[in-house]
Amino acid sequence: MSEVGFVLPAEAFTRSVPVRFSHCDAAGIVYFPHYFDMFNGLIEDWYTQELKHDYAELIMGGRIGFPFVHIECDFKIPSRMGEVIELTLLVERIGRSSLGIAIVAHRDGLERLRAHMVTAMMSLESRKPVPLPQPLREAIESYQRRTAGA
Amino acid sequence: MSEVGFVLPAEAFTRSVPVRFSHCDAAGIVYFPHYFDMFNGLIEDWYTQELKHDYAELIMGGRIGFPFVHIECDFKIPSRMGEVIELTLLVERIGRSSLGIAIVAHRDGLERLRAHMVTAMMSLESRKPVPLPQPLREAIESYQRRTAGA
Amino acid sequence: MSEVGFVLPAEAFTRSVPVRFSHCDAAGIVYFPHYFDMFNGLIEDWYTQELKHDYAELIMGGRIGFPFVHIECDFKIPSRMGEVIELTLLVERIGRSSLGIAIVAHRDGLERLRAHMVTAMMSLESRKPVPLPQPLREAIESYQRRTAGA
Amino acid sequence: MSEVGFVLPAEAFTRSVPVRFSHCDAAGIVYFPHYFDMFNGLIEDWYTQELKHDYAELIMGGRIGFPFVHIECDFKIPSRMGEVIELTLLVERIGRSSLGIAIVAHRDGLERLRAHMVTAMMSLESRKPVPLPQPLREAIESYQRRTAGA
Repeated sequence: MSEVGFVLPAEAFTRSVPVRFSHCDAAGIVYFPHYFDMFNGLIEDWYTQELKHDYAELIMGGRIGFPFVHIECDFKIPSRMGEVIELTLLVERIGRSSLGIAIVAHRDGLERLRAHMVTAMMSLESRKPVPLPQPLREAIESYQRRTAGA
Repeated sequence: MSEVGFVLPAEAFTRSVPVRFSHCDAAGIVYFPHYFDMFNGLIEDWYTQELKHDYAELIMGGRIGFPFVHIECDFKIPSRMGEVIELTLLVERIGRSSLGIAIVAHRDGLERLRAHMVTAMMSLESRKPVPLPQPLREAIESYQRRTAGA
Repeated sequence: MSEVGFVLPAEAFTRSVPVRFSHCDAAGIVYFPHYFDMFNGLIEDWYTQELKHDYAELIMGGRIGFPFVHIECDFKIPSRMGEVIELTLLVERIGRSSLGIAIVAHRDGLERLRAHMVTAMMSLESRKPVPLPQPLREAIESYQRRTAGA
Repeated sequence: MSEVGFVLPAEAFTRSVPVRFSHCDAAGIVYFPHYFDMFNGLIEDWYTQELKHDYAELIMGGRIGFPFVHIECDFKIPSRMGEVIELTLLVERIGRSSLGIAIVAHRDGLERLRAHMVTAMMSLESRKPVPLPQPLREAIESYQRRTAGA
């Protein structure tokens, strides 16, 4: 199997992202920091649309933040202006206040990049980690079970 | 009629844009340069989806660029994280190599901002203005006629 | 006088900005929204370094924001990766809670672009305009007088 | 020794970066993709100012690109609007066409984050890896020797 081959569970949360003019550098390929911004957008949509916890409300209303504590990413195939890539989110680890996720970017069955990211839930008031609220934790655990096949 | 009331032609090209975490500043509202990036995204989609001229192909294949020569924008109502705003594109003037467009951002029937932008088609090789190709000109003229009602 | 010729007062607040890889598009010239981000950076430095009012402290401590209500910009000469451009700030109008400024980007005595921007000081709590605090107003008026020669 | 304590060689290439309004999110701390953009800016300056190989000329003239193949980053202390942080670049590994570097962000002797990044030199025409040109390789090796103390 090719180094960029992969299998993703059918139920995994996936969104299409068009590679825009503004994502691309002088070589016409995505300038890498934009990938991380795409990842954050995927995570927002995952909270709101899949977990049914409104991301903006968590931050602005709940005064909770989700800073990243660790990120790693392997870039395998560059993406060019005008392409549409798929981003899929998988849960790797659920801690007390932290969450480990993987994000896979792919197109036509080939993996283009894969990131592993650990985020910690934090109070915006105290600047301290706070435990994941129980309903959110349960929604994440349920998602992890539904997508554990891969 | 309210200063933010407006009428847009039904056929005008409109796309929804979610206001993301990454668009917002420390006050939780859109940091204004991001609006201009949203506008460029709308223009890309308008070329590709409405005019049927693939934007990425024009640039990477046709070696044509669309630099802006003039921009003005009135910001009327700020937009907050988690909102979805609508962006509508109208054609104001078609020149030999230039194009004047308006972009209106709105939500729930209220205008949030309105921009007027003039772009000039340019060869990426010669760095000189080039006339709009006839098929593209005709597509823009047709769009302008279809959306002239407002 | 050339259309891009200009005279700037010697005392006007000016900062150099390197045109970076990340500012540039597939044509190797600055993608225009990045100019607006450069402008905001210049304004921050002007508050902190020239007016001696710390910009971050005004926002995070004073809970004041500076949203733009109107922007216009003429783009005259594109800027390329690796160039260093100069940005100069001039005060055009001081209102009760609003401020009109011009920003000129130039290099080697040629004007590359010129923007006119109106900002309104706003309370981040009430979301209402607030009058410019007297010490800040005086600092801006003094700057306007010192740079009125052009 | 504290988990954020560290020793950097005195000769290591270091640049100050102000944390700007536009870097910060709704919590007033740096939105993480902006760090990667800061890193790319540091690398540009390192090529041009320390290695004496003009980064823009390598890309636009030499038609060479520097895509990243692997990135990892540990975020230790968040940075807030108005702070100035120091970024230091260290060379970790020099391959035939690849380069492994570390970037440390710090302030007041405390490490705020540390990234490890591997880049591969690529021809923008063939889209294939190309060996590091000998003068560039020698400049990097010389830098690595001068900064090997830490």
